[in-house]
Amino acid sequence: MCQLMGMSCNKPAATTFSFTGFSARGGLTSDHVDGWGIAFYDGKGCRVFQDDQPASHSPLADYVRRHPIKSKVVVAHVRKATQGDVQSANCHPFQREWLGRTWVFAHNGDLRDFQPPQGCQDMPVGSTDSERAFCALMSHLRGHFKDRLQPPEWPELAPVLADFTSKLAAHGNLNMLLSDGQALYVHCSTHLHQLTRNHPFPKAQLVDRDMSLDLGPLNAEGDTMTLLATEPLTRDEPWQALCTGEFRVYAQGHEVWRQINPQTQAFPMACPDPDLKSRPMWAANS
Amino acid sequence: MCQLMGMSCNKPAATTFSFTGFSARGGLTSDHVDGWGIAFYDGKGCRVFQDDQPASHSPLADYVRRHPIKSKVVVAHVRKATQGDVQSANCHPFQREWLGRTWVFAHNGDLRDFQPPQGCQDMPVGSTDSERAFCALMSHLRGHFKDRLQPPEWPELAPVLADFTSKLAAHGNLNMLLSDGQALYVHCSTHLHQLTRNHPFPKAQLVDRDMSLDLGPLNAEGDTMTLLATEPLTRDEPWQALCTGEFRVYAQGHEVWRQINPQTQAFPMACPDPDLKSRPMWAANS
Repeated sequence: MCQLMGMSCNKPAATTFSFTGFSARGGLTSDHVDGWGIAFYDGKGCRVFQDDQPASHSPLADYVRRHPIKSKVVVAHVRKATQGDVQSANCHPFQREWLGRTWVFAHNGDLRDFQPPQGCQDMPVGSTDSERAFCALMSHLRGHFKDRLQPPEWPELAPVLADFTSKLAAHGNLNMLLSDGQALYVHCSTHLHQLTRNHPFPKAQLVDRDMSLDLGPLNAEGDTMTLLATEPLTRDEPWQALCTGEFRVYAQGHEVWRQINPQTQAFPMACPDPDLKSRPMWAANS
Repeated sequence: MCQLMGMSCNKPAATTFSFTGFSARGGLTSDHVDGWGIAFYDGKGCRVFQDDQPASHSPLADYVRRHPIKSKVVVAHVRKATQGDVQSANCHPFQREWLGRTWVFAHNGDLRDFQPPQGCQDMPVGSTDSERAFCALMSHLRGHFKDRLQPPEWPELAPVLADFTSKLAAHGNLNMLLSDGQALYVHCSTHLHQLTRNHPFPKAQLVDRDMSLDLGPLNAEGDTMTLLATEPLTRDEPWQALCTGEFRVYAQGHEVWRQINPQTQAFPMACPDPDLKSRPMWAANS
């Protein structure tokens, strides 16, 4: 299993504080030590940082914690391998270009028996079920909108993605963050929480580190920010759990679309592949 | 115009020394201050670091200079914008996935009138002629090898790429580095130099910084490394200029294929787009 963190805002914001808490789950407060990654959209560009080292101890994660990168959409992941070795190619978020936009995808859960249909245009570089699902999803979008020359926006994409993710979620747990830099698409099978912050911005206290930050001076009236995380990142803020089968879309920090599929089920947590060389938790701290 | 740096080796090697010299061209010793990027292949994975800040002063470039990342294939670029604003989306190397491999592309030159054919599956995210050319190239490969389920290797790819890059080079200067992590494909229109190092490895002295490194203790008998760069990175080593129209392939540090198209011409250097907001050199040093 893995953990997810995402952000959607109406003005570019830094995630150094949130990522400081989140990345502690990669070896300090939790055992998601098999790599990590974070994607920052910067205008049309998308910068992805990733490393197969534990996020809590990776020098590159330390760089990300120390250097604020302002972005309106962020997707991050710390990995606990259940399928696919510990290697760069298996670090989320994965990325593909479609109609001139970079799409990124991060997943927590397992879709072990899932195989993309034959003839899928997108093919996995690594060996995870997650990347296979992302390839199938992107190929589905290419097929569904096949005569388009311009990328569709979230009002058109949302029902197509809700339908497709719902089908993926029949194969196993699909807690997922997906973005094209414009909107953040979210599916929950078992564990995902959201928090929206508006003016007046609170003083926030991390769950995973003894650290707090007064968000008031960093934000103005009219600023809106929604955070997503597998488990709440801060104490004393109104994080809400998403339901099983829930699909949501966020744009400019606001929730703009929601659908719940009552048929979607939560699967029991799978045991890691017995042949898999995952890292023991102590490896991050030794 | 821009500058390129590439590496192909038979054992994973760090490029911190070479990148220290190369990145100085992004603001210290040359005016390629409009962003930079470097791709490191790590097994099947590919990690791309990029920033729209000058390479000589970018904190992320400093991270790359200080943290050795061992790789068998590296592609790097410092940008002097001639077409396309200064922004992340216009930083090379660009990347696309094809048949389960990540391809990266970096370009120096200008192909101003070049437009990818209608119906190109790959579409540019940014606004450079370089990314348009890369999209056309990848779409050409997809079409040429369209029934494949496994990626072709360099013996099959080399003649197809030599032919296609030769056609691209009819539109303007194409100094190019391209890789799928297995081989490094190189085209020269005007400026590109190569250096192969074998045992006994020399003491190397950078052109751009007052820095030298004894490569002997870092390498063993049997190690082979080829470096490519727009201009030689070190003094007193036998860098060779590639010819106009020359296409070469390197694998495991060795040159494995070469073809010269005598019809290819070198175009006069184009002036930057007058509407383009490039950075003055002093901006990197202020």
